[in-house]
Amino acid sequence: MATKLEDIVSLCKRRGFIFPGSDVYGGMAGTWDFGPLGVALKKKIENEWWDFFVEKREDIFGVDAAILMNPRTWIASGHTATFADPLVECKECKSRFRADKIAEGISESVTTEEFLETHTKCPVCGKENWGPIRKFNMMFSTHVGAVLPEDVNGDEESKALAEKSVAYLRPETAQGIFTNYKNVVDTIYPDLPFGLAQQGKAFRNEISPRDFILRDRECSQMEIEYFVRPDAWEEDFEKMRKLQHEFLEDVVKLPTKNIHELEVPAEDRAHYSKRTIDFMFDYPNGEEELMGLAYRTDFDLSNIQRESGKSMEYRDKNTGETFVPHVIEPSIGVERLFLAILSTAYTEEEKDGKTRILLKFPENLAPYKFCVSPLLKNKPELVKKAKEVYNLLREKYKNVTWDDSGNIGKRYMKQDEIGTPKCVVIDFDTLEDETVTIRDRDTTDQIRVRIEEL
Amino acid sequence: MATKLEDIVSLCKRRGFIFPGSDVYGGMAGTWDFGPLGVALKKKIENEWWDFFVEKREDIFGVDAAILMNPRTWIASGHTATFADPLVECKECKSRFRADKIAEGISESVTTEEFLETHTKCPVCGKENWGPIRKFNMMFSTHVGAVLPEDVNGDEESKALAEKSVAYLRPETAQGIFTNYKNVVDTIYPDLPFGLAQQGKAFRNEISPRDFILRDRECSQMEIEYFVRPDAWEEDFEKMRKLQHEFLEDVVKLPTKNIHELEVPAEDRAHYSKRTIDFMFDYPNGEEELMGLAYRTDFDLSNIQRESGKSMEYRDKNTGETFVPHVIEPSIGVERLFLAILSTAYTEEEKDGKTRILLKFPENLAPYKFCVSPLLKNKPELVKKAKEVYNLLREKYKNVTWDDSGNIGKRYMKQDEIGTPKCVVIDFDTLEDETVTIRDRDTTDQIRVRIEEL
Repeated sequence: MATKLEDIVSLCKRRGFIFPGSDVYGGMAGTWDFGPLGVALKKKIENEWWDFFVEKREDIFGVDAAILMNPRTWIASGHTATFADPLVECKECKSRFRADKIAEGISESVTTEEFLETHTKCPVCGKENWGPIRKFNMMFSTHVGAVLPEDVNGDEESKALAEKSVAYLRPETAQGIFTNYKNVVDTIYPDLPFGLAQQGKAFRNEISPRDFILRDRECSQMEIEYFVRPDAWEEDFEKMRKLQHEFLEDVVKLPTKNIHELEVPAEDRAHYSKRTIDFMFDYPNGEEELMGLAYRTDFDLSNIQRESGKSMEYRDKNTGETFVPHVIEPSIGVERLFLAILSTAYTEEEKDGKTRILLKFPENLAPYKFCVSPLLKNKPELVKKAKEVYNLLREKYKNVTWDDSGNIGKRYMKQDEIGTPKCVVIDFDTLEDETVTIRDRDTTDQIRVRIEEL
Repeated sequence: MATKLEDIVSLCKRRGFIFPGSDVYGGMAGTWDFGPLGVALKKKIENEWWDFFVEKREDIFGVDAAILMNPRTWIASGHTATFADPLVECKECKSRFRADKIAEGISESVTTEEFLETHTKCPVCGKENWGPIRKFNMMFSTHVGAVLPEDVNGDEESKALAEKSVAYLRPETAQGIFTNYKNVVDTIYPDLPFGLAQQGKAFRNEISPRDFILRDRECSQMEIEYFVRPDAWEEDFEKMRKLQHEFLEDVVKLPTKNIHELEVPAEDRAHYSKRTIDFMFDYPNGEEELMGLAYRTDFDLSNIQRESGKSMEYRDKNTGETFVPHVIEPSIGVERLFLAILSTAYTEEEKDGKTRILLKFPENLAPYKFCVSPLLKNKPELVKKAKEVYNLLREKYKNVTWDDSGNIGKRYMKQDEIGTPKCVVIDFDTLEDETVTIRDRDTTDQIRVRIEEL
């Protein structure tokens, strides 16, 4: 049975993985909050990534830059000028839309004329009376420093003050790495090739956020900028490509068959990229980008060099050569990976005329490794023994949960839905012979083992 | 010798712990970027906190809410109306200041008249010609959704649209927990008392950011909202107080003598708090708040209940009673803790007429556990053997660094400054007898051990 995105969204809310952001106030479009189970999974994903790409490697180091950056960052990177979607307003009902999402067969660079030729009707009022296409910059802007709201609409002097104080929430984490490249080279002197890795939030003011956590306004990125010799980029690109597969398939265990490399043709690539592979994934609602691997040339460092007037050249310790390094960038969104893992794990099984829902998480990602339960919660001797086993397992594995709610069937249902691989049940036999029942999430098989073997 | 804050700031930049934010563009006031060593330390601090308060406990669960929240959040919490500092402008030179920071003996709630009576001179131009005191709200505001910059200054309709789209960067993480309380209770049914923990960014538009990372515009908070029975708050307050000491003293090893509890008197407490203890720390530049422990009563949940119209009542599973839980909140800033740990570790020693600088990090926080070096880098047989030892230790401990730069004295100096507890040196004897030199950071003593004992 094909998994539907709605089923996953529903499970996420029902079991405390993901709630709509600001839910209690009717929400905040494009934001999502992680509940207890969601945080547990998200942290495991982030830790596995950091462990694989930073802790276990000699050539990649961490950075963690501020979200608010000097606005010159975005002039240099091109975001101020070009990070924009085509916005169109219906003159009748004043609704605003992203033009390329409501009309067929046009691109992001659509002109007013091209759009009008599509004879699109307003999705809200059904009329066809459009204003011009305007460029809507997707960076969230704010004012930093002592600027009052009245300055924005004040006299010329106040307006100038307000204008000078504008800053943006970073629309990508990458620039937080590039702007620190020079400081890192000057302090830890890494040999080329080397990478800088960062995990952190990025913000995009999507006109129409949609597709659950796939196209949200606030997301967590995990990016590496891998600095290489200009003449070695192809070899390092291959190395990074291989590493991404290793991480996706061996560490977080996504099925190889669901990952598709898409070699992005020149005309679709970002202007700075000489090669890009999009790693596409088969999500419940179709194939979507999971991550990207781009050869960004020296585009970013050269821009920073020009905008800042500071040299971004790297000096080879052996040969004495100096040059601006080129960059290979693997970039992945935590939420996209989260959903890929969740939809891989999501399983519905028919059994005895009933549907069983379970999350087949790999062991290293399951929020809890074990659930411990007393068979009956009103028998103090069972509860006491179960607590002993619980504490024993917690001591050893940390991620262990306790459940004495409802009956045993309901508990299994719940643990299946949150993906706990093993349920340990303490019953009257336990008191006699120190054995417990272990019930397996995937097979539902139950075996009897001695406590000391756990 | 008393440690000066400047010495720590200088070490932080020199060794890649912390760089000024957007440094390459001349900075961005009130923001700081963590370099490779800083991220390593920051992550260890965050992980120890999460491990101690969430993973190892049965009664505290994680959440991770979005930074952009529905603006009603800040109406309910009181931030829209009262999260403001007194701003005053010099009419001569147009400089703006936080009034209570440039005048003596006045509070945050100073009036224009009171301020004028202090006869303060402008710190920039020296004149005394002030405008009125205005309330400057410290929340960063932005527009969410399809609003164009021209709307803000446009006709009435455009302005209304812009106004409706205003949202804020959260000024505290706490509200991201409170707004999720209901969803968590409805999905995982925790017994009281229980806590929700969150780590994440908060933003405050300080008029004058200062004191390095102590008063920045963007900071990382680690907060727990611990929900309790109204009649049990005193006992739970004590429990939380004890836990904070355990974490600060036993886990991250801050000296007990440098932590001072300040029982905040009623007149200085936030209006919602019935008891607050500030945990003060002896920083290099004086005693400053490290963290706070506050009894917030039912202030937040009751506000949310009123603003949202949704019940925040908790139903006791055993007694059937319903009530709005009260809250104990331990709240700590990662940067404040980071600086407390760094200044505790920072040591200057006079030895042979020279000053040795070292960071005496506890083992669980040191960015690297070991540094491995060949005595000479131009002897391939030493380098080869050293790499073997390096790989062996990496396999076992992960946080191991390699250093073959400069001479051995310089390497020790560097490792002392980044706080690596042990340096392992491979020399010609190693090739003969499989022993290495281990040099201790704190004592500088060197001992000889067999590789297999490492």
